[in-house]
Amino acid sequence: MTIERIEEMINEHQFKELKEELKNNMYPVDLAEILREVDEKWLVLIFRLLEKEEAAETFSYMDSDQREILINALTDSELEEVMEEMYLDDTVDVLEEMPANVVDRLLMATDEEKRKQINQLLQYPEDSAGSIMNVDYIALSQDMTVEDAILKIRQVGLNRETIYTCYVTEKRKLIGVVDIKDLLTTGEARLIEEIMDTNMLYARTTDDQEDVARTITKYGLIALPIVDHEMCMVGIVTVDDAMLVLQDEETEDISRMAGINPDDDSYFGMTIFEHVKSRIPWLLFLMLSATVTQMIMNSYEAALAMMPQIAGFVPMLTGTGGNCGSQSSTLVIRGLAVGEIEFRDLFKVIWKEVRVAVCISLILATVNGIRIMIMGQGDALMALTIGLTMACTVIIAKVVGCTLPLVAKKVGLDPAIMATPLISTLVDISTISVYFAIVSYVFGLN
Amino acid sequence: MTIERIEEMINEHQFKELKEELKNNMYPVDLAEILREVDEKWLVLIFRLLEKEEAAETFSYMDSDQREILINALTDSELEEVMEEMYLDDTVDVLEEMPANVVDRLLMATDEEKRKQINQLLQYPEDSAGSIMNVDYIALSQDMTVEDAILKIRQVGLNRETIYTCYVTEKRKLIGVVDIKDLLTTGEARLIEEIMDTNMLYARTTDDQEDVARTITKYGLIALPIVDHEMCMVGIVTVDDAMLVLQDEETEDISRMAGINPDDDSYFGMTIFEHVKSRIPWLLFLMLSATVTQMIMNSYEAALAMMPQIAGFVPMLTGTGGNCGSQSSTLVIRGLAVGEIEFRDLFKVIWKEVRVAVCISLILATVNGIRIMIMGQGDALMALTIGLTMACTVIIAKVVGCTLPLVAKKVGLDPAIMATPLISTLVDISTISVYFAIVSYVFGLN
Repeated sequence: MTIERIEEMINEHQFKELKEELKNNMYPVDLAEILREVDEKWLVLIFRLLEKEEAAETFSYMDSDQREILINALTDSELEEVMEEMYLDDTVDVLEEMPANVVDRLLMATDEEKRKQINQLLQYPEDSAGSIMNVDYIALSQDMTVEDAILKIRQVGLNRETIYTCYVTEKRKLIGVVDIKDLLTTGEARLIEEIMDTNMLYARTTDDQEDVARTITKYGLIALPIVDHEMCMVGIVTVDDAMLVLQDEETEDISRMAGINPDDDSYFGMTIFEHVKSRIPWLLFLMLSATVTQMIMNSYEAALAMMPQIAGFVPMLTGTGGNCGSQSSTLVIRGLAVGEIEFRDLFKVIWKEVRVAVCISLILATVNGIRIMIMGQGDALMALTIGLTMACTVIIAKVVGCTLPLVAKKVGLDPAIMATPLISTLVDISTISVYFAIVSYVFGLN
Repeated sequence: MTIERIEEMINEHQFKELKEELKNNMYPVDLAEILREVDEKWLVLIFRLLEKEEAAETFSYMDSDQREILINALTDSELEEVMEEMYLDDTVDVLEEMPANVVDRLLMATDEEKRKQINQLLQYPEDSAGSIMNVDYIALSQDMTVEDAILKIRQVGLNRETIYTCYVTEKRKLIGVVDIKDLLTTGEARLIEEIMDTNMLYARTTDDQEDVARTITKYGLIALPIVDHEMCMVGIVTVDDAMLVLQDEETEDISRMAGINPDDDSYFGMTIFEHVKSRIPWLLFLMLSATVTQMIMNSYEAALAMMPQIAGFVPMLTGTGGNCGSQSSTLVIRGLAVGEIEFRDLFKVIWKEVRVAVCISLILATVNGIRIMIMGQGDALMALTIGLTMACTVIIAKVVGCTLPLVAKKVGLDPAIMATPLISTLVDISTISVYFAIVSYVFGLN
């Protein structure tokens, strides 16, 4: 269904048909996307046509702006229904983005027990496993039979986000996991303790959400149990949430790598002012850092006046250096993110990059030397000088590019900030120092 | 378990204990990682200590080098066991990387029926849904009762990679899906056709694997059914494979964005020569493109000789332009990848970027002007000239940066190639043209 079709049906007052259509042919995530473009008054109208469950799920996929419109328009009892149907982790996400008065109204619309759970979840640090976990899961005890276990799933399963993996606890402590497949394909009289896997993976509430998501990816899990510091089971992180976490973390990394301070909102969701705010700090810092290159060049003013054509090589040299450095830093940043590279690999990485750099610098210097001669931009001596500078630049750039992200990781910074923009600026400084030192020595310009 | 512990146990001939340890305390994916660092002869020894299932799974996580060592060392019957236990999609992955003679030997170790399935899967284009799908899934028919369905899962479930979602087919055509949760929580006498969801999501064998993985993420699915052009069900793509696809696609994108031709192998898995090969094409192309900036600067040789200090501003201007451009291109590339931005948003994006650029250019030009005055690098006229150039550069950079990825997408190229390296080079050319035109006009240097 398209937005045009929905609007048409509303205009023709085909509410019953629209209700049916929305129920049968629309996924909540798609509907939330479409609703971003409809008029405010229609948003509320369409929302009221949805079934309870669909309404709650659609609500959890909405922008904070749309949610506020709805919260202001809905009655208390309508709001209560939405809150009741939403999964707890989604509720917490919604609350985290809302202004205090709205949070109060939403919490008022929640029953006592759920409110207690919500308040507890809200206390976990942002980006921690605790903040994204779901507190609904199937807990079994080891002395149950398989038949008991299946019966329990039948009874409580309807309201659980996932029943695919069940968790065996003893006095709330996690002691094993059982896959639903194992329950279904084994004898009904067997005991859970016979079939449970005690060598299970788990994470702590305070673990970083990205690490949790990477563990889920690496081991191909459907959900990962989350325990507190006493090994008591408190929730699970499911694979669908893990995928969204990874997508957001990648976006964050890629933004940082381009010198943008990440923002939770989407490209179109951000205002002009928010875009400026997220982009200006690095631009300012890097522009002011470039003052150093300028000071170095100004100290060679006499040389530039004598041989102005040497200035023409600067953008090519700094550009190539920046590109070489960003290739290395990008590979290392990505290697760190997916867990292939660690700080202890530092010298292994540097040794690899140095060898790659030597090969690359030979190729680039040769090709560039030939180009200079052919285009008549200089004689053999000039070609040699540029070649030598190029070789130094490439090697410095590759070493700096691969080292800084590792060092950043070691000292607890996000390696992604050591990407192209910063590396380019640093490499610019060294390239220009080396270039003018060599060129003024070779041509006696001092 | 660490590699040191394993080596110690081998040296002390504690094979029985090692076998137990490997079985109980080791995940195949971790073991494959550790085995990357052991000696060749020990690799084979350790592999032979593994249980059939573990051996097959560990094998599927290995590098192609390690796999070749094993294939050469194992007997035909050992190889047959590994091939039998591996999931079909993993087998196809293994075969795709092997030299022809090894493929022949592996296929010889497979039974007739499986060989036929493998050959069919090998025919799907690389990066298509068909190439990553699993052909094992639970198929139900609509006239079965829930009890029949559970019985069928009991019988065939053991050898299926996933039983969490079952697929209802009629004459092989996909007509609905049933979640295992629904089977377990509904009456045993009900018919499948009453509880199945006929409004199901699916993909075609020829769809791009990244699109399939994004669909799985977006709708939070455990698996997506794959159909041929006649809607006949041929396999499923599971969420664990989707996560790995996304991780690889992100790595590919990030590599391309740094001017590196992506390689399937890992950082340490690639030889020096392979690293050089993947990085040199863009470096060469960009270095030679920088000839244009050089030619422009050379045409202002007289101006440079008269006022050599104007050269000192070049790295700062090109650097800032490059950073501005890469911010915009990165946001658009990412927006395209996650599906937030599409080609039809072109003018909306440009309009947004222009307004952001105007704000940013005002801030940067002002700060830089003040800096020039304070540091005594020029008078008010110079500050104004640089400010004007800066403003033009930022606006051009942002517009070029946001436009090119969208155009690339439109003409069927990967938007990721329109990232920092190429944008910087293009922006360099325009920055330098604008700068020298303005500066030589203002100071009458022609």
